[in-house]
Amino acid sequence: MKIIRYESPIGPQMGIIQGDQVVRAEGSIADGFTPGEVIAPLADVDLLAPLEPGKIVAIGLNYDEHVTELDATRKRPEFPVMFMKPPSAVIGPNAPIRIANPDNDTHYEAELCIVIGKTATDVAETDALDYVFGYTCGNDVSDRKVQYASGQWIQGKGYDSYCPLGPWIETDLNPGDVQVQSRLNGEARQSESTTMLIFSVPFLISYITKVMTLNPGDVIMTGTPKGVGPMKAGDVIEVEVSGIGTLRNPVVNR
Amino acid sequence: MKIIRYESPIGPQMGIIQGDQVVRAEGSIADGFTPGEVIAPLADVDLLAPLEPGKIVAIGLNYDEHVTELDATRKRPEFPVMFMKPPSAVIGPNAPIRIANPDNDTHYEAELCIVIGKTATDVAETDALDYVFGYTCGNDVSDRKVQYASGQWIQGKGYDSYCPLGPWIETDLNPGDVQVQSRLNGEARQSESTTMLIFSVPFLISYITKVMTLNPGDVIMTGTPKGVGPMKAGDVIEVEVSGIGTLRNPVVNR
Repeated sequence: MKIIRYESPIGPQMGIIQGDQVVRAEGSIADGFTPGEVIAPLADVDLLAPLEPGKIVAIGLNYDEHVTELDATRKRPEFPVMFMKPPSAVIGPNAPIRIANPDNDTHYEAELCIVIGKTATDVAETDALDYVFGYTCGNDVSDRKVQYASGQWIQGKGYDSYCPLGPWIETDLNPGDVQVQSRLNGEARQSESTTMLIFSVPFLISYITKVMTLNPGDVIMTGTPKGVGPMKAGDVIEVEVSGIGTLRNPVVNR
Repeated sequence: MKIIRYESPIGPQMGIIQGDQVVRAEGSIADGFTPGEVIAPLADVDLLAPLEPGKIVAIGLNYDEHVTELDATRKRPEFPVMFMKPPSAVIGPNAPIRIANPDNDTHYEAELCIVIGKTATDVAETDALDYVFGYTCGNDVSDRKVQYASGQWIQGKGYDSYCPLGPWIETDLNPGDVQVQSRLNGEARQSESTTMLIFSVPFLISYITKVMTLNPGDVIMTGTPKGVGPMKAGDVIEVEVSGIGTLRNPVVNR
């Protein structure tokens, strides 16, 4: 099932895609959704980010060849490198990424994102997928200069608009072997299977929930494959995850 | 005005302290609160963390003598070192800090915390205090081994219960010269005036909102003075900020 969030005259609403139509989604991420009446053709709705995450836990350096592509001295991590992105950075499909510092390198990072469906504390790896509501595409936009300036990555990755999510949440997906891709102005830049994740989706859920409780609507960004690179105003960046869809965002200066 | 959040049979409620009584608080952090009917003596209510923050932006190394106390090679930062703590880590007054890794050094860090009252984007330093709802005490509990293991501080500072906040929000406070103190088992450990902050409260609000939008109910933790140190099960840690009050938490093992 593909769950969208869309703009309506009474504010953001949740919907379900059925063929080329959108029907109302009744329920919540915590309780699940059931289809209601037909709203409009999918082509006619303005998609928003498919959720407003409670928190966004992100994982760095989780594909081997990305570990060393920006810094050859980096070692393969022995445990997940955990950071966060602020919910205020989230934008939806087609919304512009607004570059805060045009003189710095600001990179795209295509990622498979996990949407948590149930409160999860100290979850075993074997049970981890029971806590997943679904999956979406994400772009962990990163100002490299600011990211490395303080050592802590939050600021460089936390600017408003630096966390595109979407275009929807796919609830039926096996995350073990999907292709994570990016295209800049239509040219392929990243393409890697999640079979190459250093730490798998179930491992990450288990690892993170041994540290902190995850709640319905929290998001885990699972890391980006090799091939990251800079974007500038006028570009269009697409993140595609096979089995989900394509998240497309234009790039402008703030 | 002192704003509390307390447990009630119908779930958490907001209140206002008047003398030794609690009265109902009608409103919200975004709209402000007005006093309603008397609820109970303050001594009879179970205080919760005074809010559930949307996001918690924390500042490291913001008092000169703390910069070098754990690592003599550290330099005074030229700009605020920004990280985040997850809202899932928040606990209230008297709730136990549950040590996740008893073999690691887990430190208290007393901090003045800012509660944002209005949506704030790209705010000038001269206007910054207009966006503040009030102030509370915070303890940036930090597992030093885990904090430094990956370079990113989130995991070591993000365990459930590692963000005590409270005991209430004080809306009438000049943050420019308050004393930030901690006591471990009644013994003074930290005591420093916010006049010694490297980056002041108005500067921090301005700086952070040039990166990310802050919303009503977001919290900024302003950094800790020198004198941090380890806690263990059986200890009681208190954080006091003059003009606000005292946040007291017992320490247990998970």
